[in-house]
Amino acid sequence: MNIKAANQAALERLTQGEPVLVDCVPAGDALGLAGRIVLHAGPPLPWERACATMQAAILCAIRYEGWAGDDGAARERIARGEVSLVPCHHRGAAGPMTGMITPSMPVFVVENRRHRNRAFATINEGLGRVLRFGANDGSVIERLHWLAAEAGPVLGAAIRRSGGIDLRAIMTKALSMGDEMHQRNVAASCLLIRALLPHLAQAAPDAALLARVADFLAANDQFFLNLAMAAAKASADPCLGMEGSTMVATMARNGTEFGIRVAGLGDRWFTAPVNTPQGLYFPGFGPEDANPDIGGWPASWARAGSGKRSR
Amino acid sequence: MNIKAANQAALERLTQGEPVLVDCVPAGDALGLAGRIVLHAGPPLPWERACATMQAAILCAIRYEGWAGDDGAARERIARGEVSLVPCHHRGAAGPMTGMITPSMPVFVVENRRHRNRAFATINEGLGRVLRFGANDGSVIERLHWLAAEAGPVLGAAIRRSGGIDLRAIMTKALSMGDEMHQRNVAASCLLIRALLPHLAQAAPDAALLARVADFLAANDQFFLNLAMAAAKASADPCLGMEGSTMVATMARNGTEFGIRVAGLGDRWFTAPVNTPQGLYFPGFGPEDANPDIGGWPASWARAGSGKRSR
Repeated sequence: MNIKAANQAALERLTQGEPVLVDCVPAGDALGLAGRIVLHAGPPLPWERACATMQAAILCAIRYEGWAGDDGAARERIARGEVSLVPCHHRGAAGPMTGMITPSMPVFVVENRRHRNRAFATINEGLGRVLRFGANDGSVIERLHWLAAEAGPVLGAAIRRSGGIDLRAIMTKALSMGDEMHQRNVAASCLLIRALLPHLAQAAPDAALLARVADFLAANDQFFLNLAMAAAKASADPCLGMEGSTMVATMARNGTEFGIRVAGLGDRWFTAPVNTPQGLYFPGFGPEDANPDIGGWPASWARAGSGKRSR
Repeated sequence: MNIKAANQAALERLTQGEPVLVDCVPAGDALGLAGRIVLHAGPPLPWERACATMQAAILCAIRYEGWAGDDGAARERIARGEVSLVPCHHRGAAGPMTGMITPSMPVFVVENRRHRNRAFATINEGLGRVLRFGANDGSVIERLHWLAAEAGPVLGAAIRRSGGIDLRAIMTKALSMGDEMHQRNVAASCLLIRALLPHLAQAAPDAALLARVADFLAANDQFFLNLAMAAAKASADPCLGMEGSTMVATMARNGTEFGIRVAGLGDRWFTAPVNTPQGLYFPGFGPEDANPDIGGWPASWARAGSGKRSR
């Protein structure tokens, strides 16, 4: 087996990806999520081994779906095996931080037009107290319900009207404008909003709803983050299963373990304990408050059940 | 007289400007344009000395206002002194290239909140065949009418709803994203659209009109250019008349002359023949087609009556 040739082929497949944003629909339909299922970031993770941030997010996601009235009932659901915990990557999705996806959440649909595969990501919730950081109060759930009821449907209608938004073109421009598709997504977010605007104007059922969605979009410099993740996944996934390639095609963390998947070895995960990033802390916090790394963001900025230091 | 101290004071006044976009209204009201008046770029310019690009734009502006049915009649109006040609800078305005402003054109109103003065600029028409390059056919006039009838009023309503958009904040971000407020305005254009979007959604009388405005905004990477000029003028104008300062407070070209005004010398223009930029040309064109420099853009890209090579 010629590893070099296999890697060259995998690299070409990766870099020739043509990720296009084609829709926004409920995750249950898009990902075939039947029953009570919670998708999470990183490699597979039993509940008992999940960090406090991830556990807080999972309990909140269960309450959001109405599968339990409080955290105690949600824990019982998990203990009785009545809620499945599954990696996003096993259902074609990717998500920042805890990476929570449940059936009623709207997800963006990104199609790799080169290979006809699809990848999915939720709508970025914005900053502050949000589910991806493990924040879990009523305001978090209220925003999730609004995303499902208003933002998701109108974004989906606008995207369908557009005939598809070329994410590679947006990312190429945004990289030249200082974005790096992780901590800084302001240019890509603005470029995407500008491209969607004519279609949003036509798709919105009324001006007040459009204004609420516009307010939400205008307030979030990280809006594009989840789309960058879905675009990357749509481009990388076709490499999984390419015999002989040693290229790493997946890298993801769940707050407990860091996992990779190698192109030539398909769906198999290789995992190890995840590190805790060294970073700056808000006043009053230090390394002892930090969580091991999780999702697509250094988890030292998040804390189970607290949005205080989240960004 | 302490020139150094006067210049320090002028520089502080310039750099402490706080330009805020506060409205979009017809130029006739905003600039007090009574009767038949055409504002142009640069220092004062008698018709006979105007270059072909400027003349073509002036004739088109007269037809746009309905003051003449064709170029011949427009020339007669000028010859009989029935149309006044006045520099934009004499009425508080600035504009790219030919800088055409006539009474019915909507202008953005930029208020320097530090000094309470105002500056004005038209809505950038986009690329291709546009008046600022001296293009003068029916499509140019049709777009100008649409700007006056639809885009201007809804942009004005949105801006008033916003309570004012801080242009300095947008320009500061945009400069860090690769814009230089002249040839490259894509970041500032996107940031402004994102800031206006919630207010546009509420201000637009119907979805179809909003979609037309959104299409126009989304297609123009130079949308912010005119606002950058008005913001700069709003910041620089308070320096005119500062005794003892040798700081240049105005620099502008009209395709025939380059003119400056000096802070300590108020409204007096100092002019000299303008240069013709050296630049790249589209296939089939060369330096012999170039126009001497004009407005805020190297005029070698424009040609009287032709949008072929315009950018």
